[in-house]
Amino acid sequence: MNTFGRNFAVTTFGESHGPAVGVVIDGCPAQLALSTADIQPLLDRRRPGTSDLTTARNETDTVEILSGVFEGMTTGSPIALLVRNRDMHSGDYAAIKEKFRPGHADFTYQEKYGIRDYRGGGRSSGRETVGRVAAGAVALKYLSGFGIAVTGRIISVHGKTTTREIEQEILAVKNAGDSVGGIAEIVASGCPVGLGDPVSGKLDAALAGAMMGIGAVKGVEIGDGFAVAGRFGSENNDQMTKTGFASNHAGGILGGISSGKDIVVRIAVKPTPSIAKTQKTRDIHGNVVDINVGGRHDPCIVPRIIPVAEAMLALVIVDAVLEQKKYR
Amino acid sequence: MNTFGRNFAVTTFGESHGPAVGVVIDGCPAQLALSTADIQPLLDRRRPGTSDLTTARNETDTVEILSGVFEGMTTGSPIALLVRNRDMHSGDYAAIKEKFRPGHADFTYQEKYGIRDYRGGGRSSGRETVGRVAAGAVALKYLSGFGIAVTGRIISVHGKTTTREIEQEILAVKNAGDSVGGIAEIVASGCPVGLGDPVSGKLDAALAGAMMGIGAVKGVEIGDGFAVAGRFGSENNDQMTKTGFASNHAGGILGGISSGKDIVVRIAVKPTPSIAKTQKTRDIHGNVVDINVGGRHDPCIVPRIIPVAEAMLALVIVDAVLEQKKYR
Amino acid sequence: MNTFGRNFAVTTFGESHGPAVGVVIDGCPAQLALSTADIQPLLDRRRPGTSDLTTARNETDTVEILSGVFEGMTTGSPIALLVRNRDMHSGDYAAIKEKFRPGHADFTYQEKYGIRDYRGGGRSSGRETVGRVAAGAVALKYLSGFGIAVTGRIISVHGKTTTREIEQEILAVKNAGDSVGGIAEIVASGCPVGLGDPVSGKLDAALAGAMMGIGAVKGVEIGDGFAVAGRFGSENNDQMTKTGFASNHAGGILGGISSGKDIVVRIAVKPTPSIAKTQKTRDIHGNVVDINVGGRHDPCIVPRIIPVAEAMLALVIVDAVLEQKKYR
Amino acid sequence: MNTFGRNFAVTTFGESHGPAVGVVIDGCPAQLALSTADIQPLLDRRRPGTSDLTTARNETDTVEILSGVFEGMTTGSPIALLVRNRDMHSGDYAAIKEKFRPGHADFTYQEKYGIRDYRGGGRSSGRETVGRVAAGAVALKYLSGFGIAVTGRIISVHGKTTTREIEQEILAVKNAGDSVGGIAEIVASGCPVGLGDPVSGKLDAALAGAMMGIGAVKGVEIGDGFAVAGRFGSENNDQMTKTGFASNHAGGILGGISSGKDIVVRIAVKPTPSIAKTQKTRDIHGNVVDINVGGRHDPCIVPRIIPVAEAMLALVIVDAVLEQKKYR
Repeated sequence: MNTFGRNFAVTTFGESHGPAVGVVIDGCPAQLALSTADIQPLLDRRRPGTSDLTTARNETDTVEILSGVFEGMTTGSPIALLVRNRDMHSGDYAAIKEKFRPGHADFTYQEKYGIRDYRGGGRSSGRETVGRVAAGAVALKYLSGFGIAVTGRIISVHGKTTTREIEQEILAVKNAGDSVGGIAEIVASGCPVGLGDPVSGKLDAALAGAMMGIGAVKGVEIGDGFAVAGRFGSENNDQMTKTGFASNHAGGILGGISSGKDIVVRIAVKPTPSIAKTQKTRDIHGNVVDINVGGRHDPCIVPRIIPVAEAMLALVIVDAVLEQKKYR
Repeated sequence: MNTFGRNFAVTTFGESHGPAVGVVIDGCPAQLALSTADIQPLLDRRRPGTSDLTTARNETDTVEILSGVFEGMTTGSPIALLVRNRDMHSGDYAAIKEKFRPGHADFTYQEKYGIRDYRGGGRSSGRETVGRVAAGAVALKYLSGFGIAVTGRIISVHGKTTTREIEQEILAVKNAGDSVGGIAEIVASGCPVGLGDPVSGKLDAALAGAMMGIGAVKGVEIGDGFAVAGRFGSENNDQMTKTGFASNHAGGILGGISSGKDIVVRIAVKPTPSIAKTQKTRDIHGNVVDINVGGRHDPCIVPRIIPVAEAMLALVIVDAVLEQKKYR
Repeated sequence: MNTFGRNFAVTTFGESHGPAVGVVIDGCPAQLALSTADIQPLLDRRRPGTSDLTTARNETDTVEILSGVFEGMTTGSPIALLVRNRDMHSGDYAAIKEKFRPGHADFTYQEKYGIRDYRGGGRSSGRETVGRVAAGAVALKYLSGFGIAVTGRIISVHGKTTTREIEQEILAVKNAGDSVGGIAEIVASGCPVGLGDPVSGKLDAALAGAMMGIGAVKGVEIGDGFAVAGRFGSENNDQMTKTGFASNHAGGILGGISSGKDIVVRIAVKPTPSIAKTQKTRDIHGNVVDINVGGRHDPCIVPRIIPVAEAMLALVIVDAVLEQKKYR
Repeated sequence: MNTFGRNFAVTTFGESHGPAVGVVIDGCPAQLALSTADIQPLLDRRRPGTSDLTTARNETDTVEILSGVFEGMTTGSPIALLVRNRDMHSGDYAAIKEKFRPGHADFTYQEKYGIRDYRGGGRSSGRETVGRVAAGAVALKYLSGFGIAVTGRIISVHGKTTTREIEQEILAVKNAGDSVGGIAEIVASGCPVGLGDPVSGKLDAALAGAMMGIGAVKGVEIGDGFAVAGRFGSENNDQMTKTGFASNHAGGILGGISSGKDIVVRIAVKPTPSIAKTQKTRDIHGNVVDINVGGRHDPCIVPRIIPVAEAMLALVIVDAVLEQKKYR
């Protein structure tokens, strides 16, 4: 179950400290002009090691196209994209080899599989998203031909909302050996009416699944989201005028189908579970032990989650665009 | 795209004012004792016409088992469940046959399909959930054999939290020809560790998709949800003790896999879009018109959404339980 | 796993002697004119009791449309089709309740599920194909709009090839309390170039799976089939001329993709396993016993398999037609 | 649509003359001991350049494990396997860049996608099967733990049946600039009763689809296959004795479910379409032209198709084994 999408089907592979991470895209239409130059910029935006605010792990994340592109054009065949891992300090993890890091998937993976690649979280690492982002970049290239664009931004970090406050907060938290959460918003503009399928292929359902499937995300809202719980219907309905909808409380989706307005999604991002402070946990033998999570970590994952969330939104939309073409 | 789940695959069919609504369950294990007595009670909980707080449409929603059960036991074959529609006042909809009701899927369905069963919303009606609830009841019966139970409750309606306040608010809103939203919480207890699959089969992703796929839901939270955005990692991580996790901020899911703690989901439910107050909208010819949505409607859908959300949570969990068995 | 197809997804349900058989079609495009008159004729062709050559079971097989059609047009919603079972002589099966009929699925179902609806084979009965044929009729209606037609014919029965020989052979076999096999051919004409998808969605692979999935089919050929094993490449390649392919050894499919020529499929049909002659078998307790299969059976299933095979070919093609539209 | 299987899901990628071919396996259970030594031998059996009877293309086909294995054991994460292409004479294809090779997929790919990697057939090349064979080797390793084994053999080539006759025939055909077809048989032994799912997941249907999905295969038989068309039921039914079935006409499958007997599949393989003899065809501009297919080709693909067919049989069975575990 490592595949997203049924039309533009994206299968990621790879572990944080294995030889490589990557992705296979099955279903990208033929005759799309595509080169690594279309993919690398989005990868660079999620790349670690670019500022004091992110983990010190230094990866160039250079992508290679292994298949599906011929003379600069997609052929309709699967597009395999590969990124070799380079700056792996697997030794950092020896101390916690047998300990379950609180807030991480160590315990659940160990219980589920009876084995666990403990180096940097293995498959559960955020590094897996390299594949999603690479695929998302291809999706964005394809969507741009339809006039569809996706943008993300930080709404708040620990309640702070200005760039300056947010940077200060993250640095302070980093110095304290702690981490902090926040909220991000992703918007898709230019979507036609009609994307999404009743009943189990609703666009908002697909978006919620895609967003909640990003590690660290604990909440998803479409349009006005939780605010609707305090509204009257007369306030919340988007009335229609000659030129379209007079408002967009619905976040661009009605009955699971895009309305033509901007598609607006917000996600709640938890504080990175890897913190330097001492915590209580268990080891694989059942003993309660202290743990100090070493290695190199992001004090706040919100900035680096933006390109991932953009990629996921793009993947959901491209899938719906292709699905919709079946009925035209 | 009217099928949920890949192991316990549930396909609903039927429109609000068509001959029947129903569901086919493909993948229910054999040798489960099953009769309509296992299904009817949950259907009765979502049934309309049971109090002043709900729509006056009066349906008995009597379920018939068409297949898959032999001498009181499931056989492993598809279980088809049928509920005939009875109390249909299709005439109520003549006045709005050509108008797009604000907040409803009328406009998006019309644009997507070029045709629309306008009677009560057709396929986009909440009546479609009869099939989901019937299937959910079968899932709950199966899950009960594993000690898994699901319960839902209203958290708030328009900010009100006590039963008395909520009932008063709903009646007041009804009398005002308006509607109101709220928040519900659904909890699954007794789940084993290990349900859910990385990367695209994460349990929280599946839950978010299932919940957002219920009409009127605009937000989904797992565990502490949006509150995590204001937390430090040291506050938010669930530390482990000898007996397990010391807290459950994560809502029972880590890395997309169940941790053994209660699975906790909250949903934001928008005010019912059908209101008596006059609204502005468009008709299918492009004219701006006034609309007064007649018919019989719920002033607040939160109470009746609870059994639907319980059913969806059960469907997600049963699917994960079957998936997990493959790797044992 | 009772669903065929990913775009025009067809889920059948029902047992030979249960209350009903039926099907849900998910993915039929909107705005197709559809009524029971489009479906009943194909059902009538597979219906039992129409001549001395078939089983004496007498079913009218009257189909009811439960959903997905509004004012005579499909709406894009799931189309549920229902056929009630009527002429069920379940008592006929009491004598073989505990015995595994040779050549039938009794033994494998019992071992797989630990329970078995023994009345007429339950789910493994040919009666399940009512749902497939009903769905196939809808597919054929849709395909007719593209100029695609499907026809089937008997090639041989027990080596006999003329209608007169075949009828005589079947009656002789019936009188002898035995049964007999044969070969049928199904052809789709009017298919455009480009249907089918590499690598796992090849049209010939889908056809082979669909045909082999019909009970009693033990062999499938595309185009010249097994004859190619005795050919040179220079004989077998279809060369091209100004107007297209000069021959059609390939049966209309190259590299898994339709070539524009007729799609030609042949199937080998085994003799009906239900025969009056005494056979050796086991019962569910492990004893070796004699068995005489009573009930009402077809001495040769080839004639009645034709509409089923036509339906399956139509379902495969309609799925490919919709898939192909995604890339246009 | 480049993914086989729903539980042990295998997605291949890569073109004949691109940088690499490979595969991602999603769903391989954890804790399987696995190294390249388990995979390389089956790849070596399908490798070109090993005798006078095969193409002269010389590839070492050395496989690299990119993910999913940690300290010699599978982790439950996707297993990505990569084989770099090395001996590519893309120049060989310049002469036929614009011509559709008869019997190949050139024409159908060009029409479907509007673009075509003409070098060695690109994606439609037999080289794509490197990924399938690598995945099949992993499946075989897993199945060996259940006592399941798969073996294939040549039945005939151009009617010849002894090894000596076959080798002489292939060499003669090669010298004549032609090619020749044949028949192969693949058998799985040790399968438990109960594999396969009614109605659309029948084991024989899956096998037929998998086999027909191998390039060059034009016919598939299970058990006695086409011979059943000339049988009486009393001859063809496998009667049961104390120790099991007295015969295996059914080829180990009843009602789509494995019976515990050997699973027997035969395939008809067409003559390799690439021949040196002059043929008539069209070019992409619509002109009728002569073509002499240069490059390096197999005069008979039957020997090299055996490991591919073994791999496909293994993939079908492993998928059914995992599916079956859900219901235990």
